[in-house]
Amino acid sequence: MNIYDVSQKANVSIATISRVLNGNPNVSDKTRARVLAVMDELGYTPNVFARGLGLNTMQTIGVMCSDSSDPYLANAIYYLERELRNNHYDSILCCTGYSLDTKKKYLSLLRSKRVDAIILTGSKFIELRQKDNLYILDAAKEIPIMLVNGFLDGPNIYSTVCDDYSAMYDVTSNLIKSGCRRILYLYTSQSYSGQNKRTGYLNACQDAGIAPEQALVHQCPKDVLEAKNLLTALHEQGLRFDAVLTSDDSLAVGAVKYANIHHISIPDELSVVGYNNSMFSLCTEPELSSVDTKIEALCTSTVNTLMGVFAGGNVPSKTTIAADFIARDTTKF
Amino acid sequence: MNIYDVSQKANVSIATISRVLNGNPNVSDKTRARVLAVMDELGYTPNVFARGLGLNTMQTIGVMCSDSSDPYLANAIYYLERELRNNHYDSILCCTGYSLDTKKKYLSLLRSKRVDAIILTGSKFIELRQKDNLYILDAAKEIPIMLVNGFLDGPNIYSTVCDDYSAMYDVTSNLIKSGCRRILYLYTSQSYSGQNKRTGYLNACQDAGIAPEQALVHQCPKDVLEAKNLLTALHEQGLRFDAVLTSDDSLAVGAVKYANIHHISIPDELSVVGYNNSMFSLCTEPELSSVDTKIEALCTSTVNTLMGVFAGGNVPSKTTIAADFIARDTTKF
Repeated sequence: MNIYDVSQKANVSIATISRVLNGNPNVSDKTRARVLAVMDELGYTPNVFARGLGLNTMQTIGVMCSDSSDPYLANAIYYLERELRNNHYDSILCCTGYSLDTKKKYLSLLRSKRVDAIILTGSKFIELRQKDNLYILDAAKEIPIMLVNGFLDGPNIYSTVCDDYSAMYDVTSNLIKSGCRRILYLYTSQSYSGQNKRTGYLNACQDAGIAPEQALVHQCPKDVLEAKNLLTALHEQGLRFDAVLTSDDSLAVGAVKYANIHHISIPDELSVVGYNNSMFSLCTEPELSSVDTKIEALCTSTVNTLMGVFAGGNVPSKTTIAADFIARDTTKF
Repeated sequence: MNIYDVSQKANVSIATISRVLNGNPNVSDKTRARVLAVMDELGYTPNVFARGLGLNTMQTIGVMCSDSSDPYLANAIYYLERELRNNHYDSILCCTGYSLDTKKKYLSLLRSKRVDAIILTGSKFIELRQKDNLYILDAAKEIPIMLVNGFLDGPNIYSTVCDDYSAMYDVTSNLIKSGCRRILYLYTSQSYSGQNKRTGYLNACQDAGIAPEQALVHQCPKDVLEAKNLLTALHEQGLRFDAVLTSDDSLAVGAVKYANIHHISIPDELSVVGYNNSMFSLCTEPELSSVDTKIEALCTSTVNTLMGVFAGGNVPSKTTIAADFIARDTTKF
């Protein structure tokens, strides 16, 4: 039983059946009724191949993320999948890892699957060297490319980003207002989002009349124990700091562990701020003040924008969502 | 440019092109060469529709999980996706939530997509009432159903499970050997895996001559703060316990927080054991002793079994993988 049988029996073209299946208004009520009656009579269920043949769409969106076991990305996948499903789209997930070659390979693989669009989840997909992003611009010539918390300027590319700059600027300003003068900044990556966060921190220091110090800015792998060990090493080298501001909760957990081991009182002697407001933020004692980066809103907005693109609407190429500061017990504010 | 153009130009049937694309040996070398030459000349790239038409396979596996933002399941998705990709299969991910109706709906949706198999990730997919599992047995009449850490007996259903019973039996025995007599057991779910864990705990107590006490066994949502609050409430009701054994790391994190707040020394006055050896286990001070449930091995084994099924091999319907105990600082062993 297939779409050809329906076509023959209903005496209409396959294109007409596609229109009926997809709710296209360019079918007369009479024809629609006949097609549906035949489908019912033959017990025909439209399947993905028929849809593919008829409309050249799989109603499927490719979702790429570097690593689904990262808590931030795992949440993003969850929300994207839910929102796509609510809009009657399936998702094909690719976990690409972090190498550019693999990202290119998977993007090309998704294109060969004729997905209707590709969502690049997380800021790790945009490279610093513009020529390394050409393959994305290239793909956007054929299908919409959606970036979740990444930004790339180009036709048919749509970004939804969290305002990481303002979030970091504001939290740094508040640390300074609460009396901190030597704010150690720990960051995990130099991505688009990573750069905005760092600039927010640096500008807030400068605007408050505090000269940024190279010695207070450190990169660290996204790992609790690496952060704890780095802070212990800096402490032993004699570096003084009265706050640890991080670009990810895992680093802030490491900071709380460091403080607990060295009997440094939080927040009296040391303030600690996490980022992403993940499950990590509740694990420590005291619990982490953290920046809620609104991952659910980012994903919902990404899918809404994509549906707008499909509907041919005039959609913004960049949507910015404000973060929230969640005050818990590791800051004085 | 499509498979029909190739068919016409090479003067072969679409079925023949499918055979060439899929490396089927029932094509003469001469025909194969002609088809490949025409594809090259026309610049034709085989796409998923063509494969679907020719062989009735999408080379795609449906992966269902209840919640990709759960750290255990997020890791499972990552490993399954990687192993499937290594075997040239794509995955369509569905996050089903926990209601039976939604699970049924998504399974039916994946079947309508003509996936080649469905992987049910996590023990939450098998219901206690046998009649609630009929839809899975039904689906297995058409395609292989793979269970990751769940078990259901039936034709064309393949389970890979962690030996949760032995893991919990052994860790309970070791807690008793290290001097614990009143082991509080916190569990999150009554699933297949959940039941095995609890029976392991109860049997180990009994075998050591310690009568299990109803008051020491409590269900708790998978949530750090819920666990902390439950333990505080039990403490205030006067319940005495010298160990907290949990079915998930998040509950063990809650136990460490409870102990820290009440100035109870770990492990001298209270032993704490986590389960799954997730990122949570490194967040606390002291760090959690935990059971490594070998999620990577479970996923690799699941995909290997599935490839065996596709190859028509004689594969086991149930594979059991032993857990490892990871000793850290919350136990005396």
